[in-house]
Amino acid sequence: MMPNNKTQIKELLQRGVEHIFDREHLEKRLLSGKKLRIKYGIDPTGPSIHLGRAASLWKLRDFQDTGHKAVIILGDFTVRIGDASDKQAMRRIPTRQESEEYAKKYQNQLAKILDLHRAEIRYNSEWLSCLRADELLGLAEHFTAQQMVQRRNFKERWEAGRPIGLQETFYPLLQGLDSKAVKADLEIGGSDQLFNLQIGREVQRLYRQEPQDIMTLRMLVGTDGRKMSTSWGNFITVLDSPKDQLGKIMALKDELLGEYLELCSRLPASEIMRLRNLLAAKRVNPIEVKLLLGQKIVELYHGTKAAAAAAKEFERVFRQKRMPSDMRKFKARQKRMNLTDLLVETKCAISKSEARRVIQQKGVKIDGVVHDDWKEEVALKSGAVLKVGKKKFVKIAI
Amino acid sequence: MMPNNKTQIKELLQRGVEHIFDREHLEKRLLSGKKLRIKYGIDPTGPSIHLGRAASLWKLRDFQDTGHKAVIILGDFTVRIGDASDKQAMRRIPTRQESEEYAKKYQNQLAKILDLHRAEIRYNSEWLSCLRADELLGLAEHFTAQQMVQRRNFKERWEAGRPIGLQETFYPLLQGLDSKAVKADLEIGGSDQLFNLQIGREVQRLYRQEPQDIMTLRMLVGTDGRKMSTSWGNFITVLDSPKDQLGKIMALKDELLGEYLELCSRLPASEIMRLRNLLAAKRVNPIEVKLLLGQKIVELYHGTKAAAAAAKEFERVFRQKRMPSDMRKFKARQKRMNLTDLLVETKCAISKSEARRVIQQKGVKIDGVVHDDWKEEVALKSGAVLKVGKKKFVKIAI
Repeated sequence: MMPNNKTQIKELLQRGVEHIFDREHLEKRLLSGKKLRIKYGIDPTGPSIHLGRAASLWKLRDFQDTGHKAVIILGDFTVRIGDASDKQAMRRIPTRQESEEYAKKYQNQLAKILDLHRAEIRYNSEWLSCLRADELLGLAEHFTAQQMVQRRNFKERWEAGRPIGLQETFYPLLQGLDSKAVKADLEIGGSDQLFNLQIGREVQRLYRQEPQDIMTLRMLVGTDGRKMSTSWGNFITVLDSPKDQLGKIMALKDELLGEYLELCSRLPASEIMRLRNLLAAKRVNPIEVKLLLGQKIVELYHGTKAAAAAAKEFERVFRQKRMPSDMRKFKARQKRMNLTDLLVETKCAISKSEARRVIQQKGVKIDGVVHDDWKEEVALKSGAVLKVGKKKFVKIAI
Repeated sequence: MMPNNKTQIKELLQRGVEHIFDREHLEKRLLSGKKLRIKYGIDPTGPSIHLGRAASLWKLRDFQDTGHKAVIILGDFTVRIGDASDKQAMRRIPTRQESEEYAKKYQNQLAKILDLHRAEIRYNSEWLSCLRADELLGLAEHFTAQQMVQRRNFKERWEAGRPIGLQETFYPLLQGLDSKAVKADLEIGGSDQLFNLQIGREVQRLYRQEPQDIMTLRMLVGTDGRKMSTSWGNFITVLDSPKDQLGKIMALKDELLGEYLELCSRLPASEIMRLRNLLAAKRVNPIEVKLLLGQKIVELYHGTKAAAAAAKEFERVFRQKRMPSDMRKFKARQKRMNLTDLLVETKCAISKSEARRVIQQKGVKIDGVVHDDWKEEVALKSGAVLKVGKKKFVKIAI
């Protein structure tokens, strides 16, 4: 079913989208009912797809669902050149074996998002490995070194004196040759792909093809608000376990909730708007919304059962372990005192014998550490938390 | 005959040479008597070879004469990429037809300098036209964009905001692939080739070849002391007519004589030293040395007879037309006067009748313009030169 409906097209061109060119041209084509070839390229640089990339793939899925052709380019050739779009430095180039393994793993992940039976999957070595230097250099004549180096990421590296591989400056041309090879009508990419996608238009034009329209999605930042980075572990991948996916969403910074709902869930726009409004009015606890979002994400990649199980487990472990926000305070008179006396004085036990019993049953923790000797003289620190049984918490002050 | 003689080798490594690397390695090889493969590359970018390039070719000839193998690369592939070494801006790329014509014309010119029967002439399309992009990009990984752009000529263009073709940054790699293809032991080039020649060493090393030694010759400046430029017409080519070659040398700036003797003539070093000393001591008129140099150059490219004829013609036309440096002055009392009276008053004629006769015979010129009407009232300007017959010159003052 083609989206002959203006509202549907509007949603397609709006949700999560940062930039479209040529918007008018694309809208007209979508309204015309023509079946478009929609390209999305992935270089298999690592084992898994993160939710930022997944957002672009879900957009592609939306196009599939409205009757267009998804054309996935697996960059088994370009991966060896290296795309500088999201790089601050020259990167290690994966070996051929590694990238073949990654490419295989990608297909399994893609299957979680796209309808692969209806998609066209192409490896770009198909046309790039037999490309002659002659043709590539002839193409390069139409571009300047300045143009390639002055793009945002190179510029930063240039100014910081960090090396830019000579081959990297040719990357956008190769990506453009992909568009030409598959005769793309539209290319979708992350926000950092804008430059490459535009070069793709130029390359197609030089080969006398109608230039593709281009659509970039907003950049998904890491769960801590910084750029996603392996070293910070602040991103979620399609392959993460249900527990990890949910856990990372629960640790999400509150102010990122709206953006994550839009880019990472399939909740309808109207529902997201409702949640955003509730959050803004503080009429819902962000934790509840995170739990919903986390479940929705686990559902997408591991199914409904796994999502329910993960949510239940979360309730059990996290909620029950949570310390009350209205914890009692106890002002200690000495820096050291007997553990049994401490329990009685803090009113965590009604008698020394009850105190001894709960201590011996390992029901007493100070800052999470079990203390099971009722004769112990414990050292008290300001801010330490005494926990007795499941529910009694006391904060120590000196 | 190999130059087993240290003096010969010293001259080979010294005359006109700006830079050698690795000097020690090269000296050792030359002394060993090994027959070296000596590469010189020319991109057929124009119809003729100028004397600056010819200097490198004569150096190559010296190596031929001492038993080494000259390997000439005609850059029919690279000419379409464009070498930035001596360029201040992107240049027009010659068409395939043009560069084939140039290449043919070059062979005729090369024959004036080299012993082509003993030389190996290769077109670099032989190995570059079938080069795969894959291999080129793999090679590029070993170099950085900074390295390629920060070379002298690019740097100037970069800083001036003049475009650098993306393909131009790959030129040095292609030239390096030439060195690899012909297994060069030594590459000779102009001063502006230093960067490319060094990259050639790297490329050979990456292909596990012993890196070539490199030798650059000093840059020959134009006859007016500026950089050679078609628009200034300040250079001499191998194809220029004897008259033009001699004429341009006669117009050479005096201070360039020594350098032109060394780079453009085949006079022995000792003779050049003698002439330099005479010039420095002002014991010889530079014009005489220029006439000698001019004749020697014409001899090289057009033969002894043509050289003698050109010199004779020069004597006839230039010497005889030359105005004496001790010209008489004539202080005129009026701004206009009768031409016949002028000749008598300036003592260029002993009588009015002689004056009339020489005027009617078109023997009178003012500032080079014939005046043949003895009744004419001529306008006199300060500094104008009156010439009567072949030998009488008078400078007018008002």
